[in-house]
Amino acid sequence: MKLHKLLVLMAATVMSLSLSAHTLRSPQGVLQLNVELNQKGTPVYELYRGEQTVLRPSSLGIEIKGGKHFTEGFEIDTVTYSTFDEEWTPVWGEQATIRNHYNEMAVQLFQPATKRTMVLRFRLYDDGLGFRYEFPYQSKLSYFIITDEKTQFALTGDHTACWVPGDSYTQEYVINKTRLSEIRGKIASMSFNPTYNYLFSPTGVMTALQLITDEGLYLNIHEAALVDYACMHLDVDDKNWVLTSYLTSNARGEKCHMQAPCHTPWRSIIVADNACDVLASNLTLNLNEPCAYDDTSWIRPIKYVGVWWEMIVGKSAWSYTRELNNIHLDNVDYTKLKPHGRHGATTAHVKEYIDFAAAHNIDAVLVEGWNVGWEDWFGKEKEYVFDFQTPYPDFDIDEVNRYAKSKGVQMIMHHETSASIRNYERHIHKAYELMNRYGYPAVKSGYVGNIRPVGEHHYGQWMVNHYLWCVTEAAKYKIMVNAHEAVRPTGLCRTYPNLIGNESARGMEYEAFGGTPADHTTLLPFTRLMGGPMDFTPGIFEMDISKANPNNKNRVHSTLARQLALYVTMSSPLQMAADLIENYERFPDAFRFIEQVALDWQQSIYLEAEPGDYVTVARKEKGGERWFVGCSVDERGHTAEFPLSFLDKGVKYKATIYADAPDAHFLENPQAYTITSRTVTSRTKFSQLCAPGGGFAVIIEKL
Amino acid sequence: MKLHKLLVLMAATVMSLSLSAHTLRSPQGVLQLNVELNQKGTPVYELYRGEQTVLRPSSLGIEIKGGKHFTEGFEIDTVTYSTFDEEWTPVWGEQATIRNHYNEMAVQLFQPATKRTMVLRFRLYDDGLGFRYEFPYQSKLSYFIITDEKTQFALTGDHTACWVPGDSYTQEYVINKTRLSEIRGKIASMSFNPTYNYLFSPTGVMTALQLITDEGLYLNIHEAALVDYACMHLDVDDKNWVLTSYLTSNARGEKCHMQAPCHTPWRSIIVADNACDVLASNLTLNLNEPCAYDDTSWIRPIKYVGVWWEMIVGKSAWSYTRELNNIHLDNVDYTKLKPHGRHGATTAHVKEYIDFAAAHNIDAVLVEGWNVGWEDWFGKEKEYVFDFQTPYPDFDIDEVNRYAKSKGVQMIMHHETSASIRNYERHIHKAYELMNRYGYPAVKSGYVGNIRPVGEHHYGQWMVNHYLWCVTEAAKYKIMVNAHEAVRPTGLCRTYPNLIGNESARGMEYEAFGGTPADHTTLLPFTRLMGGPMDFTPGIFEMDISKANPNNKNRVHSTLARQLALYVTMSSPLQMAADLIENYERFPDAFRFIEQVALDWQQSIYLEAEPGDYVTVARKEKGGERWFVGCSVDERGHTAEFPLSFLDKGVKYKATIYADAPDAHFLENPQAYTITSRTVTSRTKFSQLCAPGGGFAVIIEKL
Repeated sequence: MKLHKLLVLMAATVMSLSLSAHTLRSPQGVLQLNVELNQKGTPVYELYRGEQTVLRPSSLGIEIKGGKHFTEGFEIDTVTYSTFDEEWTPVWGEQATIRNHYNEMAVQLFQPATKRTMVLRFRLYDDGLGFRYEFPYQSKLSYFIITDEKTQFALTGDHTACWVPGDSYTQEYVINKTRLSEIRGKIASMSFNPTYNYLFSPTGVMTALQLITDEGLYLNIHEAALVDYACMHLDVDDKNWVLTSYLTSNARGEKCHMQAPCHTPWRSIIVADNACDVLASNLTLNLNEPCAYDDTSWIRPIKYVGVWWEMIVGKSAWSYTRELNNIHLDNVDYTKLKPHGRHGATTAHVKEYIDFAAAHNIDAVLVEGWNVGWEDWFGKEKEYVFDFQTPYPDFDIDEVNRYAKSKGVQMIMHHETSASIRNYERHIHKAYELMNRYGYPAVKSGYVGNIRPVGEHHYGQWMVNHYLWCVTEAAKYKIMVNAHEAVRPTGLCRTYPNLIGNESARGMEYEAFGGTPADHTTLLPFTRLMGGPMDFTPGIFEMDISKANPNNKNRVHSTLARQLALYVTMSSPLQMAADLIENYERFPDAFRFIEQVALDWQQSIYLEAEPGDYVTVARKEKGGERWFVGCSVDERGHTAEFPLSFLDKGVKYKATIYADAPDAHFLENPQAYTITSRTVTSRTKFSQLCAPGGGFAVIIEKL
Repeated sequence: MKLHKLLVLMAATVMSLSLSAHTLRSPQGVLQLNVELNQKGTPVYELYRGEQTVLRPSSLGIEIKGGKHFTEGFEIDTVTYSTFDEEWTPVWGEQATIRNHYNEMAVQLFQPATKRTMVLRFRLYDDGLGFRYEFPYQSKLSYFIITDEKTQFALTGDHTACWVPGDSYTQEYVINKTRLSEIRGKIASMSFNPTYNYLFSPTGVMTALQLITDEGLYLNIHEAALVDYACMHLDVDDKNWVLTSYLTSNARGEKCHMQAPCHTPWRSIIVADNACDVLASNLTLNLNEPCAYDDTSWIRPIKYVGVWWEMIVGKSAWSYTRELNNIHLDNVDYTKLKPHGRHGATTAHVKEYIDFAAAHNIDAVLVEGWNVGWEDWFGKEKEYVFDFQTPYPDFDIDEVNRYAKSKGVQMIMHHETSASIRNYERHIHKAYELMNRYGYPAVKSGYVGNIRPVGEHHYGQWMVNHYLWCVTEAAKYKIMVNAHEAVRPTGLCRTYPNLIGNESARGMEYEAFGGTPADHTTLLPFTRLMGGPMDFTPGIFEMDISKANPNNKNRVHSTLARQLALYVTMSSPLQMAADLIENYERFPDAFRFIEQVALDWQQSIYLEAEPGDYVTVARKEKGGERWFVGCSVDERGHTAEFPLSFLDKGVKYKATIYADAPDAHFLENPQAYTITSRTVTSRTKFSQLCAPGGGFAVIIEKL
């Protein structure tokens, strides 16, 4: 292995670009990019960090239908350099202001055989590179169909990778941390469902892909601003360590319908010499366009509880009846059907959640299963599966909303589409109107199941278009969107900040579906979260799921203290306190943390991190003086040690520490936690033991 | 050939069903149906007209995905007989009242291997048979996917057929009249466009399929009430003369997603011993459900002119500019683009049509090309191709509608979708709202091009669902729909009478695109028109298209007198006077017929007809005493002879006859016509010479 790698590196040196290449340096000179055409007229780029090669010569190109590919035969027409430096203010997020500072090189290519022009635009930051293909308005190119994008990332060796399989259906996988060379074997050992899963390659993976080189570089490959284009996966050449882009197909095997002037999303790679800097990078957001909305006053972070976990664990049900073996939605009178008695979303039960929210500083209540159709929502590829309008007989939508309003609590709407896209689009305006009528500020939408129309996939261009359309239509109604099972985010929340959440990864629910390894929440920040916040739904206090449903023997792979930490380690403007009320009432002191934790941040400081091991971050609330620190660790446990130098100097603070008890263990003793207070200052060296599968959460307030 | 046919007929006799078959006779005993299970437990039916075999034993069955097919292994559970007789009143049509009189046999089949039930429901009329597959609510069947329907029509020989190729994209073919045995060779000799046309079989044909047996029977096979199911074509076994159903596929090659209780559309066969009785049959309408709307007062026949033929011939254009080679609809300012000067739908020009309509008893004006996007509407598979809202800068929609209202003229809306279905559905409600705002009573919609999303086809279940959805949504806005390039109609206008028209066949426009044989309008009534009215757009007075556009050398294959006849021979509640105003102003006496001809009928009497040769029909206007007679003939000419015995006895009438002049000829002298008057009574024997490609039209009024 070692010898092999050495040879590859030598080859890389030989293949290195000539001095005639066009070169771009990042603002501080940390990164250097070279771009040139090879002998075939194919554009090739390489990336260095100081003396270290990040990417060996990597070719770029796009293949199109019925025409000469944009892969070779190019001449360089012009190379234009520019620089950009600004601070911008996100509506919500990990930082109150973000600096966007890059040097840019636009390489205009001309293909004499077709008289067509393509521009490669590179933006080089000190912490990474973004580039995209652009097709300007021109006489010889208007409409074209992309059949393949051949963007290479030629790595320097068999890096360690944090990855999930490259599926067109779901991202809800356990995140693997292996060598690139181990991906093939790992995927081969996994079981997939041929009805749903579609893997494009035996070595295909999704982005964001976190890589760690043996030399200690942390690389993170993703895309930014995925708009009206197919989602990019990566095909791993596990002999030569070259990653090549793969785009999700439509029913005809094509990838993207394009119309010049147009461009691809940004392909991005974050480069850092430590893991914290990867998490702190704003590259993905910076590569997105500024906010598209004039008025964003209606976009507000939300903390919520809901009628949800009880269905996930199997204590109650989304559905209302078992009397029929199928439901014709346009021809059913639920009031004449015998209820099965396990329906969760009843008026009385929802009021309990409203009462709880009102008593505990929780903004809102989500209710799933409020609307008719849940009896046969899944696996039927049913077209007219929901109407998003009609409540079950035992859910009095008028009364629920009246009651919530009287308690100062908001309601969160739920639209499961069952991936029947036309049906959702046909009903969406009336559904949004209903939300406006009652004052619902946000909707959780879902896309479970195979896409209807068949032939389209969750991550193809047609669906990418749909997800964003729902968000921009929602904005017309001042509605925030939290879309589950949608394509993983790519920083679009900068442009469309009413996209306040996505799932698009394995969330807490899988703890009730079979379980998730304890290191999962130390890997998510390096993968799924690179593109935007996740509605992970933390806050489970009862790890033994059989206590809620004796038939469900699963358990949550976490200590209780770590559940609190997740509100900090996985930043999101939308945070659920996901557990049952009864479990929160058993641990009111621990729940105090969830009540208090902020949702929006002035500043975030990643204190220590190693993908798959631990993540520790301190965040200062926006509009306040409190700091919150969270730490989530893997099954081996960890002692976090860091200075509190981020605190104001000369000021005394009270730190309230929600930690694992010394005998805590995510499997054996997960509910053993301690809550302690101490005085700290900017000079305090903080140290805290985390149990296996544990973590801690801290509130630091000025005394 | 003769010997071969004889052998087949002998085989048919041997295969004839046993006396134990279940038998159904039509009300007057004209037709007899036998149904039984064969040795495999496959349902088989046969049909007789008196002593004549219409259909030899023909098997029935449906194949499904991932389960035992509904094709064999059945037992007969129960056979239920009933009879039905009613008169009903269509909102518009060829008759003021229609008798629906049939005997019914419901054969309930049980498949022991699956414990599933399927019902075959047969409705036998004296003029034909309808039957369908039904899947009642049952414990062992809810959702299923049909992969094939294997409905046979086992004919008795090599009948003469009037057919078009079985394409999933278009029906706009020349109608062939050949022996069944000649279909294969004819299709092989035709040229198709692989980008668009999809032929499922070298011998595939569409319905309605008109057949003529050597024994003089006229059979017409079609389907009725095509709702949420794929369109049925027929595959011709040209050795054994068996036709088998073929359903249009989705992107995955499946045919229909079903949910019990459910049923297929009706499969129908009209049986008559003369061609006139086929045209007079109401079988297709009778097999449809009664009107779904309580209030139909807003549904009214319309005679219209429009900004259309001038674009078809190439005299003016739908588009506005040539300045850009493509249009991004969300990012274009047409007011800044240089117009090419050939745009048809200008405010001033539309006012000319409004003035003409007001002066000539024409109800309405259609305007195509009024809305932005026409520069690149075709062949791009463009998603966001139209918004159905935004007029071109030179079309002042406020002023046009104000002016039309002031003149007592209605405007007809136009929605070309370019087959971008999602885009249309996203905009349709706002588009209908715009129509309501201005008072447009009807929309002509179009579906030119490959369906987006790709993988769906014009005649698949997904699109069938779309077409009807547009109609039922339109009804909520009291809007009538005339959909072009939609699936051919199946009598749904009985249930949804705001579906006032369809194209779904080769219309007049093809005369400007290369031409259509002179017999076309004698074949359409037996094929396309069996399912509902066609917006054929007759009334072209100038056959030499180069007079409108010197670059277009095509000509209309008809005499002028025949153009008038089409308003009578091809009944429709929506009739266009399609030619340019200037051509009507050259022939004001002939145009008088178009001004006067009725659109809705008390009674229709087919006087003589032979598919491909001639069609002559007399129709009495609804709410009046006038009769209109039309006759359209093929390229050989014809002398029509019939008694006027349908007139009230003892009453004198004035007949105004618009006929071919003695020297008229559709190619040499098409504009030679005579207008004569004579007194007629019910005892008059009417005789009129029709030129080759000619015809005549008569108005008969009480003196």
